[in-house]
Amino acid sequence: MTQPHLSQKHLSLLAGGVGGAKFTYGVMRALPDPASLTVIVNVGDDFEHFGLKICPDLDTVCYTLAGLENPATGWGRRGESWRVMEAVAVLGGPDWFRLGDLDLATHLERTRRLRAGQPLHEIAAAFCKAWGVKARVLPVTNESVPTVVLTDEGELAFQEYFVRRRWQPRVRGFRFAGAENARPAPGVLESLRTADAVLIAPSNPFVSIDPILAIPGVREAIAGKPVAAVSPIVGGEAVKGPAAKMFRELGYEPSAAAVAEHYRGLVSHFVLDEADADQAAAVRQIVPHVLVTDTLMTDATKRVELARTVLSWLEREP
Amino acid sequence: MTQPHLSQKHLSLLAGGVGGAKFTYGVMRALPDPASLTVIVNVGDDFEHFGLKICPDLDTVCYTLAGLENPATGWGRRGESWRVMEAVAVLGGPDWFRLGDLDLATHLERTRRLRAGQPLHEIAAAFCKAWGVKARVLPVTNESVPTVVLTDEGELAFQEYFVRRRWQPRVRGFRFAGAENARPAPGVLESLRTADAVLIAPSNPFVSIDPILAIPGVREAIAGKPVAAVSPIVGGEAVKGPAAKMFRELGYEPSAAAVAEHYRGLVSHFVLDEADADQAAAVRQIVPHVLVTDTLMTDATKRVELARTVLSWLEREP
Repeated sequence: MTQPHLSQKHLSLLAGGVGGAKFTYGVMRALPDPASLTVIVNVGDDFEHFGLKICPDLDTVCYTLAGLENPATGWGRRGESWRVMEAVAVLGGPDWFRLGDLDLATHLERTRRLRAGQPLHEIAAAFCKAWGVKARVLPVTNESVPTVVLTDEGELAFQEYFVRRRWQPRVRGFRFAGAENARPAPGVLESLRTADAVLIAPSNPFVSIDPILAIPGVREAIAGKPVAAVSPIVGGEAVKGPAAKMFRELGYEPSAAAVAEHYRGLVSHFVLDEADADQAAAVRQIVPHVLVTDTLMTDATKRVELARTVLSWLEREP
Repeated sequence: MTQPHLSQKHLSLLAGGVGGAKFTYGVMRALPDPASLTVIVNVGDDFEHFGLKICPDLDTVCYTLAGLENPATGWGRRGESWRVMEAVAVLGGPDWFRLGDLDLATHLERTRRLRAGQPLHEIAAAFCKAWGVKARVLPVTNESVPTVVLTDEGELAFQEYFVRRRWQPRVRGFRFAGAENARPAPGVLESLRTADAVLIAPSNPFVSIDPILAIPGVREAIAGKPVAAVSPIVGGEAVKGPAAKMFRELGYEPSAAAVAEHYRGLVSHFVLDEADADQAAAVRQIVPHVLVTDTLMTDATKRVELARTVLSWLEREP
């Protein structure tokens, strides 16, 4: 396959955690100049734990782009050890959110810098530089906009729902606390406005992408552009995580078409997996441009292949 | 040597870090019931680093009493590793204050509990229980009373002076910021008032013991009691740390007698090393009861021997 022309231009990509990070890695590798890619990352999962600021999606994206990610889990770091958490457990401390020794270093240094007044987007840039990441990675906002999960048991903080309760409570909806007054991080709107195309990674629409779209100015900045989303639902199930379960609990059959419907009016291009080829016609009623291809990023090569396929297609059908 | 009678009674002990911890260990081991010992620990060295609350003296005392201390350094933990700090250094974070992986667990869990509203003295009690420490260990106050070192270069936060600058700046004095309005931690004054005797460990008088004495009520609580101090200066030098250098920079010849003079009016009993036997007569002009013995705690046996010698003497010469 030849290098697509679009890869010469500026791209913005909206991403959540593991699935988003894999696609982002593929796009970065598919581009001749990784610096032409700006990744705008969800911060709704961020929380404070042990007094430290934890940014799971930001870290997963950065670790993955740097090749530091744990290949077994998709989150956390390769070659991780658990000395600190084991000693915390001796003291009766909570170990439901597993913080590895190497991962802890990220949270410690981020917390130190935040307390010294450095904004989150500058910290992310400094960490990317230290780890050799050439793409630009931006938190969608430097402010705290925690995702709250509305469940049958009441409101749950995101990590309470996602990690501690292993996404078992039934969801009724979501709230992005403070989003309406949050300012996008410096560079976010500029990147979106000047992008030749915007990509939406195969991340959870409800808790990875929607919290990005909830930040004022983001939707407006991408309106009218080529916006291509990759379905995180394949064969009626989420490749990873609770997306399909959430669709069901909110009253929708989980499907690529349901994802397309969720993004109606926002995206111009939609990528669904070969397993869902029978939905292509239905999706075309919702989104003008539809691509059916193998979307399962089971190894690094397939991440890059998917990215090249999507970028080539955007070039052919802008 | 027979078990001294005094060991059956209640003892309070004022302590700083490494030297204080060793003597405290000896006293705890010399007592038939370690629970009859209350250790009141300096918190002037405490500071925030990476968003975590670090209590060096409290931790050194607890680690030592638990047998978890690093025998090579006297501070930090036995079998320590440095995975987190190495990863912090990659990010350009500060590594002048070395935080081991096991030690970090203590700071993380303490910070978490403080943020959840648990007071420091309860946290210390919970940690001691988890580590199997039977003596009662109390921070002198739950409040922040940071020691500020007045130097030729201006005021320095204690750890800036002590660790980052390796106690090289010349000192002119000390300030215990906020001490005048700090409340002793629950149990501190009760322990001192009901103690049959009070021991002052061979810790730095200026930056380990004085910050304890600066907390309102502490001096009053021990007035008129048997109070026995062990000299941290032996042969004109500090066994460890900057005590002798501080005496010199403040205009005094460092000596056991200078320590006794520093504690004039506060202590009734003073222990000096055999190396300083020639100062015994001079010290007797300052403190009524003087004991000359081997005070160098070069191994665990010698810590216990020193403690037994001091306790027996207090029994004979109350």
